Amino acid sequence: MRLFSMPSSGNSYKVRLLLSLLGRDCAVVDVEDGSDAIEAARVAGRLPFGKAPVLELDDGTLLPESNAILLYLAEGSAWIPGDPVARAQALGWMFWEQNQHEGTVALRGALRFYPHRRHLATEARMAELLDAGHRNLAIMEHRLAGHDWLAGPAPSVADICLYAYTHTAGTRGGFDMDRCPAIDRWLRRIAALPGYRGLDG
Amino acid sequence: MRLFSMPSSGNSYKVRLLLSLLGRDCAVVDVEDGSDAIEAARVAGRLPFGKAPVLELDDGTLLPESNAILLYLAEGSAWIPGDPVARAQALGWMFWEQNQHEGTVALRGALRFYPHRRHLATEARMAELLDAGHRNLAIMEHRLAGHDWLAGPAPSVADICLYAYTHTAGTRGGFDMDRCPAIDRWLRRIAALPGYRGLDG
Ligand SMILES: N[C@@H](CCC(=O)N[C@@H](CS)C(=O)NCC(=O)O)C(=O)O
Ligand SMILES: N[C@@H](CCC(=O)N[C@@H](CS)C(=O)NCC(=O)O)C(=O)O
Repeated sequence: MRLFSMPSSGNSYKVRLLLSLLGRDCAVVDVEDGSDAIEAARVAGRLPFGKAPVLELDDGTLLPESNAILLYLAEGSAWIPGDPVARAQALGWMFWEQNQHEGTVALRGALRFYPHRRHLATEARMAELLDAGHRNLAIMEHRLAGHDWLAGPAPSVADICLYAYTHTAGTRGGFDMDRCPAIDRWLRRIAALPGYRGLDG
Repeated sequence: MRLFSMPSSGNSYKVRLLLSLLGRDCAVVDVEDGSDAIEAARVAGRLPFGKAPVLELDDGTLLPESNAILLYLAEGSAWIPGDPVARAQALGWMFWEQNQHEGTVALRGALRFYPHRRHLATEARMAELLDAGHRNLAIMEHRLAGHDWLAGPAPSVADICLYAYTHTAGTRGGFDMDRCPAIDRWLRRIAALPGYRGLDG
C-alpha cells in the first residue's frame, strides 16, 4: 500500500492524519502541486481523477478521493460510527465538506497560499469567498456549540475530514476565527488525540 | 420518514430514483427552488445545511446531503458493493460527483435552466464550464468504455448518484454527448432497471 500525497494539501493531510491516529504505517510518495512528481504520477496513470491523494493497494488498485480513502482505511474501526443514523450524519458532513466547505474555506486558503494561484485572487472573488466561508464555518460552529464531535458521541472520520482545512482557516484562509469559539475548542480536542500529527509533522 | 425534495433538482431526484428502485414508499414534501415552501422548511429548521434534499426520520432526526441519504437508504442492499475495494470505488465516484461533476456538469445545466440564475451565465463562465464539464464527462466515458457500471460488477449507489445530472447533461447542460457513446449506453442500462422512474415521473 502506498499513498500519493501532496505535502501542502489538506485533502492529503486528512489521510496522513488518520493513518497516524490508527497507528498504521504506509509508504508515501510526495507529489507537490505543480511539481514534476505529480506530473509523472499523472502520466503514469496513477491519479484516476487527475488529483491527489490516491491510495495504491498492493495489487495496483487505485483509490482516489480523500474521503473515500478515509472510509476505506477506517472500515471496522471506531472512527466510523456503528449506529446507522450517526454514520449517515458523518457521511453528510463529509459530502458537505466536498460540496461546500472545500470550495469556500479551502479555496480561499489556496488562493492566498500558492503563489501561482494568486492571480485568481481578485478582490471581488476573495470578498465573496470570505462571506461564503464564514457562513459555512457558522454551520460547523452551530453544531459544535452543542456537541463535542460532528457526528455521534465520539470522534469520527467526519471530524478528521473537516479538521484538515478548518485548522488553517484563520492562518491560510484569513477567516475570522474569533467568531467560532466552539470550533476552536474542537480543533484543540482533535490536536490532543493520541497519535495526532500536524500538517507539516 | 419524509423527504424534503426539490422537484426540478438532480440531487433530490437521486433519492426519489433510489426509493423507486428499492420499491420503498416515502412521503415527499416538495420544496422547489425559490418557492415559499423551501423558505418555510428553512425557517422551520428542517434544512440543516440550507439545501434540499433532506430526509426526516420518524423521530425527527434530519439527514441532509443527497449522497449520504442514498447510502443510508441502501444500507444492507445490493446497491452498496459488499467488497470493500468496490465500495471504496463507489464512494470515490460519489465524492468526486460532489467535488467536480456537480460544480461543472450540473452547474452549467442550472445556469441555463433556472430563469433567475441566467444573469450568472456570462459567456466566459459558460465556456469555462463547458470545457471543465467535458473533461469530467471524459473521465466517466473512460471508465464506462471498459465496464458496465462505475464501481464493481453491478449497478450501485454510485451509478444512481451520477445518473442524476449526467442524464440531463446534453439537454440542460448543453454538453456534446456524441463524444460519450459509453455514457449513452450506461444511461440506457439505468433507465431499463426494474423500478426506474424519470426526473418528472
Ligand atoms: N475531491 C478530491 C480533491 C483533491 C484535490 O483537489 N487535490 C488537489 C490538491 S488539494 C490536487 O491534486 N491538485 C493538483 C492539480 O489539480 O493539478 C479529494 O478530496 O481527494
Ligand atoms: N450537496 C448537497 C447539495 C444540495 C443542493 O445544492 N441543493 C440545491 C438544489 S440542487 C438547493 O437546495 N438549492 C436551494 C438553495 O440553495 O436555496 C446535496 O447533494 O444534497
